[in-house]
Amino acid sequence: MTNNPITFELQATYGNARAGIIHTPHGDIPTPVFAPVGTQGTVKGITPAQLHEIGASLVLANTYHLYLRPGDTLVAQLGGLHSFMAWDGPILTDSGGFQVFSLEADRKIDEEGVTFKSYLDGAFHRFTPERAVEIQENLGADIIMAFDECPYPYGRETNEAALERTHRWLERCIRAKKRPDQALFGIVQGGVFSDLRQKSAEFLTSLDLPGYAIGGLAVGETKEEMHAMIEVVNAILPPDKPRYLMGVGTPDDLHNAVRRGVDVFDCVAPTRLARHKAAFYRNRQINMANSEYKNDPRPIDEMCTCYACRHFSRAYLRHLIMAKEMLGSILISIHNIHTLIEQTRRMRQAILEQRDWTYEPVEESE
Amino acid sequence: MTNNPITFELQATYGNARAGIIHTPHGDIPTPVFAPVGTQGTVKGITPAQLHEIGASLVLANTYHLYLRPGDTLVAQLGGLHSFMAWDGPILTDSGGFQVFSLEADRKIDEEGVTFKSYLDGAFHRFTPERAVEIQENLGADIIMAFDECPYPYGRETNEAALERTHRWLERCIRAKKRPDQALFGIVQGGVFSDLRQKSAEFLTSLDLPGYAIGGLAVGETKEEMHAMIEVVNAILPPDKPRYLMGVGTPDDLHNAVRRGVDVFDCVAPTRLARHKAAFYRNRQINMANSEYKNDPRPIDEMCTCYACRHFSRAYLRHLIMAKEMLGSILISIHNIHTLIEQTRRMRQAILEQRDWTYEPVEESE
Repeated sequence: MTNNPITFELQATYGNARAGIIHTPHGDIPTPVFAPVGTQGTVKGITPAQLHEIGASLVLANTYHLYLRPGDTLVAQLGGLHSFMAWDGPILTDSGGFQVFSLEADRKIDEEGVTFKSYLDGAFHRFTPERAVEIQENLGADIIMAFDECPYPYGRETNEAALERTHRWLERCIRAKKRPDQALFGIVQGGVFSDLRQKSAEFLTSLDLPGYAIGGLAVGETKEEMHAMIEVVNAILPPDKPRYLMGVGTPDDLHNAVRRGVDVFDCVAPTRLARHKAAFYRNRQINMANSEYKNDPRPIDEMCTCYACRHFSRAYLRHLIMAKEMLGSILISIHNIHTLIEQTRRMRQAILEQRDWTYEPVEESE
Repeated sequence: MTNNPITFELQATYGNARAGIIHTPHGDIPTPVFAPVGTQGTVKGITPAQLHEIGASLVLANTYHLYLRPGDTLVAQLGGLHSFMAWDGPILTDSGGFQVFSLEADRKIDEEGVTFKSYLDGAFHRFTPERAVEIQENLGADIIMAFDECPYPYGRETNEAALERTHRWLERCIRAKKRPDQALFGIVQGGVFSDLRQKSAEFLTSLDLPGYAIGGLAVGETKEEMHAMIEVVNAILPPDKPRYLMGVGTPDDLHNAVRRGVDVFDCVAPTRLARHKAAFYRNRQINMANSEYKNDPRPIDEMCTCYACRHFSRAYLRHLIMAKEMLGSILISIHNIHTLIEQTRRMRQAILEQRDWTYEPVEESE
């Protein structure tokens, strides 16, 4: 594969940690990077202008959801996802694989693809590797993902079979892909089994793809298993391609994965937690509805520079929550997304300056 | 009354329409002006930064709601409403009168004040003119309102009695007021009765207040009655003081009231309509959930310069509504508030330039 629409520039390493830039048709993504998730074509409650202010450089959207509603052909008709959601920066779409496999009772897998039931109206739909690519070509993201099978991480035989199928499906995705302005990333699977992960990483590397994802983690395995799998895979993946750990994470996960050579992250946690009143505070979460914040004039985090922390007290945020005002979850979402993006920015700066970073927080009484 | 913390500079008139500037401790308000409403200390779903971008110069908040939750003393403890809600521009609080009188079954009026039941926990509370001023002093808005009685507009005897009481309560509010940095506006009542409105306007004018409101309109009377009452009152109120028509309006109401000499407006309609999927389109409202917008690439209004109309299609807004995404009501709120503020800006410009304004829209097929 040559003339990739996206290229990765490795700028510095520090141990296994990497700082780089992903060049895409819609702009540069400095890495390590955290991508907020706009499941249905919107990061919940946040405008694109606010995303820019937060410092987001990459936004993720879900093929499964957008395919079902409003439909990928409608999005294409309206100029593609960048135009539709008015996000002019880089976009990554997943393949829908993870979502349809999560349906369990409502899906049936065969060698050709997966038949599943829509959660919207109960109608049956079918995804194949070819369809997943076609839908993502209609959506028009800069980075698109191969259609993969994501089994429960334990169970060697299931994972072995799923892995073989994922590899066959990847080759079909590559053959199906038509648009020259999109980069297709492959996904390393293999559950918690080092030799399967190794085999998958080696196979994918042999295909010389523009980027690689590590899938099937943060789905129930232990942190030690997650770290071990990242290490096995990243020892094999080529250094000149970006590495994306799917569906991760938390401040702790980001710290540990960057140290092990991961470049790209995405997770719904910042906005989902915000809607459940939880704000990132250093390495933990605090519940903003807590009565102890009733008259607390401090921001969520005095060290944070986000819009919410520069302007609003915990007392005000708690009031918004108590009064069921949507500005509450909006402001906490801004804070939570900012926290993870700022963390990746700090790690990037440390790597560029060839120094270790301190992983906040020190345990302190709050 | 001298040394008012707010003063009104009348810049130009065109017929009965006026252009001016209200100077307040938190900045200037060019008039005519529309003030979005932050009932519970937040304009629903909109950050103060977004309000600034929309061009809001005055924000209204509700004494009744903030008194019940989070409590006016808590707001005072946190530095007052400007600091609490992080709105550094001018704020106006109503007196709570309109809300407690709306409770009907759950309130009891006597000469001293009103006892009412909290909608939050059923507990009994009491507002008097003195309490309404004290609460508003705790909240700390630039403009505070006298505590008044707002009867149903028809019924001459009720209105006559309510008017007398409102005047006695106004005098008590003036005596109770302590803060030198807040301006107290009186409220003209009198239902749909010209002689009562006249009497009320004359009494209030004799008190030389820093500003005057017209209350008890847009509550069920006809448009003709509303216009007639505004004319009667504005013929009496002094030209060098701002005139505020409470709880209005719609594009049509703003147009008609400015022509009759009103300077200030507030209404929850822009955000409430938005939460019900309705967007202002010229002189009417369109339902953004309508299936005809399914693949409509146009913005809500091609002539509108708001953030929503500069970036998003009707198709995207409809998708957000269908997907129950809160960005839908946020973007329509931005558009609706912008529409009314932009309308007042255009009327102001026309008055300054000594010309009539065209009242859009021409009936056109959409």
